[in-house]
Amino acid sequence: MAKVQLTDLVLRDAHQSLLATRMTTADMLPICPQLDKVGYFALEAWGGATFDSCIRFLNEDPWERLRQLKKALPNTKIMMLLRGQNLLGYRHYADDVVTKFVEAAAKNGVDVFRIFDAVNDPRNFKAATEAAKKTGKHVQLTISYATTPFHTIQSYVDLAKELAAEGADSLCIKDMAGLLKPYDAYELVKALKKAVDLPIEIHSHATTGMSVATLTKAAEAGAEILDTVISSLAMGTSHSPTETMVEIFKGTQFDTGLDTNLLLDIAAYFREVRKNYKKFESSFLGADTRILVSQVPGGMLSNLESQLKEQGASDKIDEVLKEIAVVQKDFGYPPLVTPTSQIVGTQAVFNVLFGRYNKLTGESMDLLVGKYGKCPAPKNPEVVKKALEALKMEKEITHRPADDIPNEFSKLEEETKKILGTDKVAVEDVLTYAMFPKVAPDFFKKRDQGPVKFTAEPEAPKAAAPAA
Amino acid sequence: MAKVQLTDLVLRDAHQSLLATRMTTADMLPICPQLDKVGYFALEAWGGATFDSCIRFLNEDPWERLRQLKKALPNTKIMMLLRGQNLLGYRHYADDVVTKFVEAAAKNGVDVFRIFDAVNDPRNFKAATEAAKKTGKHVQLTISYATTPFHTIQSYVDLAKELAAEGADSLCIKDMAGLLKPYDAYELVKALKKAVDLPIEIHSHATTGMSVATLTKAAEAGAEILDTVISSLAMGTSHSPTETMVEIFKGTQFDTGLDTNLLLDIAAYFREVRKNYKKFESSFLGADTRILVSQVPGGMLSNLESQLKEQGASDKIDEVLKEIAVVQKDFGYPPLVTPTSQIVGTQAVFNVLFGRYNKLTGESMDLLVGKYGKCPAPKNPEVVKKALEALKMEKEITHRPADDIPNEFSKLEEETKKILGTDKVAVEDVLTYAMFPKVAPDFFKKRDQGPVKFTAEPEAPKAAAPAA
Ligand SMILES: [Co+2]
Ligand SMILES: [Co+2]
Repeated sequence: MAKVQLTDLVLRDAHQSLLATRMTTADMLPICPQLDKVGYFALEAWGGATFDSCIRFLNEDPWERLRQLKKALPNTKIMMLLRGQNLLGYRHYADDVVTKFVEAAAKNGVDVFRIFDAVNDPRNFKAATEAAKKTGKHVQLTISYATTPFHTIQSYVDLAKELAAEGADSLCIKDMAGLLKPYDAYELVKALKKAVDLPIEIHSHATTGMSVATLTKAAEAGAEILDTVISSLAMGTSHSPTETMVEIFKGTQFDTGLDTNLLLDIAAYFREVRKNYKKFESSFLGADTRILVSQVPGGMLSNLESQLKEQGASDKIDEVLKEIAVVQKDFGYPPLVTPTSQIVGTQAVFNVLFGRYNKLTGESMDLLVGKYGKCPAPKNPEVVKKALEALKMEKEITHRPADDIPNEFSKLEEETKKILGTDKVAVEDVLTYAMFPKVAPDFFKKRDQGPVKFTAEPEAPKAAAPAA
Repeated sequence: MAKVQLTDLVLRDAHQSLLATRMTTADMLPICPQLDKVGYFALEAWGGATFDSCIRFLNEDPWERLRQLKKALPNTKIMMLLRGQNLLGYRHYADDVVTKFVEAAAKNGVDVFRIFDAVNDPRNFKAATEAAKKTGKHVQLTISYATTPFHTIQSYVDLAKELAAEGADSLCIKDMAGLLKPYDAYELVKALKKAVDLPIEIHSHATTGMSVATLTKAAEAGAEILDTVISSLAMGTSHSPTETMVEIFKGTQFDTGLDTNLLLDIAAYFREVRKNYKKFESSFLGADTRILVSQVPGGMLSNLESQLKEQGASDKIDEVLKEIAVVQKDFGYPPLVTPTSQIVGTQAVFNVLFGRYNKLTGESMDLLVGKYGKCPAPKNPEVVKKALEALKMEKEITHRPADDIPNEFSKLEEETKKILGTDKVAVEDVLTYAMFPKVAPDFFKKRDQGPVKFTAEPEAPKAAAPAA
């Protein structure tokens, strides 16, 4: 019986996508008893941008959030999203920090590690994967999905085999921009199921409006686990609604067995909670299909538009969208996900404003010389040469970038002690400092004041539409 | 080659669902040259609630809108939604009015008549269908989709055969509330295609988030035409995005052949136009899955909530939702669409507030004694008896309700002459008066002032979300 399981992303990706990652732990805990009864494969509840948001905006200790959620969800696996060797920060860390981080995450409550890397370089998964395997937790390795001439089914099959060899317990296809079309998902999942003997989970954003169909066809092709979000925080740049998928599969061979009435109670809860975050909502909540041609994620598109506006060049947006395709190719076809989406996007803006590659950003240089790892395809040697010259380097880095980083945990620990003014610090605090060295000191100072709280503003009544 | 065709609803159902039917002709005409190039099966652009909205809110002559659209769309069929013997009003009209209306609609620009009846009584389609056939235009007869114990595949097949016998050129499955699940759509279309040799068009609202999957599976089952809306007015209580369906089917046997870049230009236009109607937007634009259990359309749900609020009984909503199922059964399982949705909903509220059937509304009585036609299933005889007694009638009406209405066009013409103060009136004005006798006189007086105009208010900037 090909029963399908669901992972609900309501506690992480949903509010990261729709509410600028602002949901507080206080707004999560009251519904945990119900969430814990559903019978999800997992609840994605930690990692991604939530760690950053906790200390930057919410004055919440992210480790304390994890412990509280774990306690409130005794029967449900907690999934975290981990950016490979970047962990939850924005640089590559030394292996000892990666190991410590994964150990602490497992100890504090993470049951499923979903690990990805922006350029899909298997070597960037390695340290996190090995550490996660040692904790005995479920290790899910992720294929970041892109549609470029390089990204054929065969290239994904090759990557899947490499990730399987790394020891993955399951694979995830991560479609961060809603590019994965239903029939392509069908072909891809079929091919992956044939190549590797691992459960496959689909993470497909609803941005373009096709995600529900994509999940449906992926299930038909044999995907065992689907990422969804409870309806009241679903769709738009978020994900397919949980109840919708449950109802679609009810009575079929893919039946999830989940209780729609219980899910509707949870949806009602988050419908109210959402009102607390109205000021953080994205203004457009429908379907944005532009990406199907431009390949540019919606969040990236807004960033580009504001960059151009600052430069008084708003009329150049179409040119920039075309230039992105050029840059992505020259850079070796990295998928457009954090941080490569920003790197490629900003470089495209620079190319349009100042002439192609007349001005390379520091991040572009690093990506070009291999500091982010091996990009999927060969790069444009002319552009790589420019970067090498600018960085006064002889040749590209071809080894694993983290091999150049000496162990650094002790040093970070000493710095944390200094900041906290004690000679004994929790490993979690060291890791918080390691992730966001600029934000953490301030957070440590204010931590005792406790989390911020958001409340709903009264809403003006709107006209109701007739049904026809 | 099973090529799929699309009907775009952007000029009618999209703004009826999302913007309280307020879009003006002035906001439609500038994009018509592009719309006319797309190659749609048709553009739904008239009928439904637009006629009412034109004269009530926009000070626009709906016939003039039709003529202008026809002129601006020389290569595209214009579809209208016609409520059978109700035409665009809220009562049954005499056959001569139905005939005159259909003739005038055809003459002024309608190319496809989509005709439906709230209780799916084929006799209520008859006069409109015969008149439409005589004009030589395409006649599409509609099955209003409901999920009740009565509504089996066989009941739909039987209805489809009856509608085919009426002379339908095509059939439409009208899923006004997003209840049609993908695999159910597949089975239903398969069964209908086997039973009748007619093209099938699917009209499935996006309310519950499953419409894109539903259209996809319907196409797999052989549906030739799908209703979509250009992305910037899609999703929520509207429909599946046009570009999304085009991209899903591209390169498959269902390829629509439409040009995504042209569609993106149209989407960009309506993205801007939509801003003019911000004050009319429904506040919730995501997926509402409550209907999958309650079967109650979103618009109806809002109405119920405000009715209960007025009575200080907001806490009774769950009771009312349960009562709706009882009333729908007792009333012979009418699909919940205008006007039956209002009738059943209000009666359920009355039942909860005053005790079951202690107070019957006038409309409930009419529905129970057959004045709206034959309901799909047998009614509760006890409740029918109450209605008969209240109306001092011997027995239910079993003939076609319109048979009781003597021709009335001449009388309406005389009244219109009086109102306009002339002795020669256009048939279109008589029909406008016939549809909305309370609103039309005022409209006639102010018509010369020309249409109202909506403009966008400046918007506050929002925080952008990262893509992950
Ligand atoms: Co509709
Ligand atoms: Co995501």
